[in-house]
Amino acid sequence: MDPSVEKAMEPYFSEQFYNPSAIYLNGREVRQALENARSDIAGCLGSKPAEIIFTGGATEANNLAIQGVMRCYPDSEILVSAIEHESVLEPAALFKFKRILVNNTGEIILDKSSTSDGASNLSELIADKTVLISVGYVNNEIGTIQPLRQISALIEKVMKQRQTQKNPLPLYLHTDAAQAPNYFDLHVSQLGVDLMSINGDKIYGPKQSGVLYVKTGVQIGPLILGGGQESGLRSGTENVASAVGLAAALQLSQKTRKTEQERINNLRTIFINELQKRLPNATFNGSKNHSAPHILSVTLPGSDNERLMMELDELGVQAATGSACAASNDEPSHVLSAVGLSDDEARSTLRFSMGRQTTKKNIYYTAGLLVKLLN
Amino acid sequence: MDPSVEKAMEPYFSEQFYNPSAIYLNGREVRQALENARSDIAGCLGSKPAEIIFTGGATEANNLAIQGVMRCYPDSEILVSAIEHESVLEPAALFKFKRILVNNTGEIILDKSSTSDGASNLSELIADKTVLISVGYVNNEIGTIQPLRQISALIEKVMKQRQTQKNPLPLYLHTDAAQAPNYFDLHVSQLGVDLMSINGDKIYGPKQSGVLYVKTGVQIGPLILGGGQESGLRSGTENVASAVGLAAALQLSQKTRKTEQERINNLRTIFINELQKRLPNATFNGSKNHSAPHILSVTLPGSDNERLMMELDELGVQAATGSACAASNDEPSHVLSAVGLSDDEARSTLRFSMGRQTTKKNIYYTAGLLVKLLN
Repeated sequence: MDPSVEKAMEPYFSEQFYNPSAIYLNGREVRQALENARSDIAGCLGSKPAEIIFTGGATEANNLAIQGVMRCYPDSEILVSAIEHESVLEPAALFKFKRILVNNTGEIILDKSSTSDGASNLSELIADKTVLISVGYVNNEIGTIQPLRQISALIEKVMKQRQTQKNPLPLYLHTDAAQAPNYFDLHVSQLGVDLMSINGDKIYGPKQSGVLYVKTGVQIGPLILGGGQESGLRSGTENVASAVGLAAALQLSQKTRKTEQERINNLRTIFINELQKRLPNATFNGSKNHSAPHILSVTLPGSDNERLMMELDELGVQAATGSACAASNDEPSHVLSAVGLSDDEARSTLRFSMGRQTTKKNIYYTAGLLVKLLN
Repeated sequence: MDPSVEKAMEPYFSEQFYNPSAIYLNGREVRQALENARSDIAGCLGSKPAEIIFTGGATEANNLAIQGVMRCYPDSEILVSAIEHESVLEPAALFKFKRILVNNTGEIILDKSSTSDGASNLSELIADKTVLISVGYVNNEIGTIQPLRQISALIEKVMKQRQTQKNPLPLYLHTDAAQAPNYFDLHVSQLGVDLMSINGDKIYGPKQSGVLYVKTGVQIGPLILGGGQESGLRSGTENVASAVGLAAALQLSQKTRKTEQERINNLRTIFINELQKRLPNATFNGSKNHSAPHILSVTLPGSDNERLMMELDELGVQAATGSACAASNDEPSHVLSAVGLSDDEARSTLRFSMGRQTTKKNIYYTAGLLVKLLN
């Protein structure tokens, strides 16, 4: 966590531990802190405070978005991109769902014009019963940014057709934005999303903190029932410290995102150049032009990524072979398969993530280590 | 939070913020801290560590227990006591459910022998399709302790009958133990429960921390799907700080529970005596012999509990009119109705909670204030 986040949370660990739903004065004061956090987050998203639902992280937010909407529309269908995080794919699989394929840079295929082989494209997948489309803002394994604005424009077209055809079903766009806030704009009207998941622990905020943005008017039900907190969408005594910490972290991410985007992008370019120069067989996964700066997925043909990861770890560099969430699973990454890597290539692929504390020195050190270990 | 709890959590806020599912060394070390917390909690419950599932509090644990089991058994039925918390009643209402009535001290009616008017008793309510019984350990509004051991014995009898009748359906006992750990034993084999919810913020632990104990062999599915953490029952990057804090808080509660039970019981007796002496119309809700020491629900005929609460608040005493979780709701408490109070009586009822920092002086001061305000 960023030290400023921890400091913002501190008063709510003990002195201000009151239940924000209690009616006495101290409870109402803590309630005010919670509502201030909600307003601050709404400010970052350009939304109304009432559209912000606190959750226990992006996994819960993704589940709430998908299960919460799909249960309101029995027999309807959900479309998800083939490279979504497990916390989108697994709840989607509870319902009638189809996968939107991605091209070899990881961007979803919007329509026929953007594919040569007639693969499942979003435009053709949208059926009369489709009620929800869930496409991540930034992919967590390869960094590809999805064309949310274009998806939203397509949805507008479909909704006009539905009006003409007297089909009353809405068509909502959800995005898992867990990987986005440190570098990108989050204004929901700019993105054109109806639901958006944000995660605290990816932005130097507390673990298991998150929000789901739910646009006014979206039909959605709760997963966790009880006291009716969070407008009835997420019961349980509110974790005020966590909400306050998340708000501080999100505001900080938005304040620094432009300078950090440029800085980390430069580091990424140096990293790529170093590897290309010294390891000419290395290939880079994801998109060149539509990528987040902080993720670099590199395939090093002939290498064993698990062994390489362990060797790097011993020398002070922490890399990943896939999503940590699926780390205990031996299957090759579904994201790498979706962008066309063979199982062998996926098993030779490492993911490096950079962040607020990453320096040029770290990059040269890591590139040097990789060269040494591979030669 | 207890200062020792905050201190135990501290290292996991920043220095040890690693994802416990990551494979590199720092990740594995944090994983070890999480597993130690799980073992410590299992120790308090006399369970296996693998039977402990971390959740975001008791509300989520109650939902996981009820929705998680009931979805595995379509067309089956759940029985809940009429005085359960909303986080039990509301998820139960998603399924076929019946309410077990309570007597006027708040104890569930076990069988015909314990009721005069043939009201719905547990023994008669158990049907061939009943798969789950959920009865709270200690009621949060009136402090009544339920006879879990007797319910468990009844379940054993039913299970023997089911074996003879070749009915393969299990019959599980779940208890919401959120109000119990500060004063009572939690050993699951002693209590005879199959599922038990524990909450952190009622025991000087962190907010939105909790566990669900799930006995080996119990069929249960997740609410929140994704990376498969917590044996697949609760996905999402683990909140290690919260787990470590909960373990510290639970261990402390078990270490001090006997002395605290005696101390708080004495305070409660003093409180009751003072009020009886000086406000002879006052009546006390709940059970005399089967009550937790820390909750005192008192009806002060003719008073307006909301006004009284506000007046007490201004003078430094924080009381409650119902469950804080339902505080925004204007309905009289379903718990007070269930033990036979009229709406008028319920609106003249205040709940006082005592804890680790409550002193004799506090009790005399509060009793004195009540007398002054009512006369």
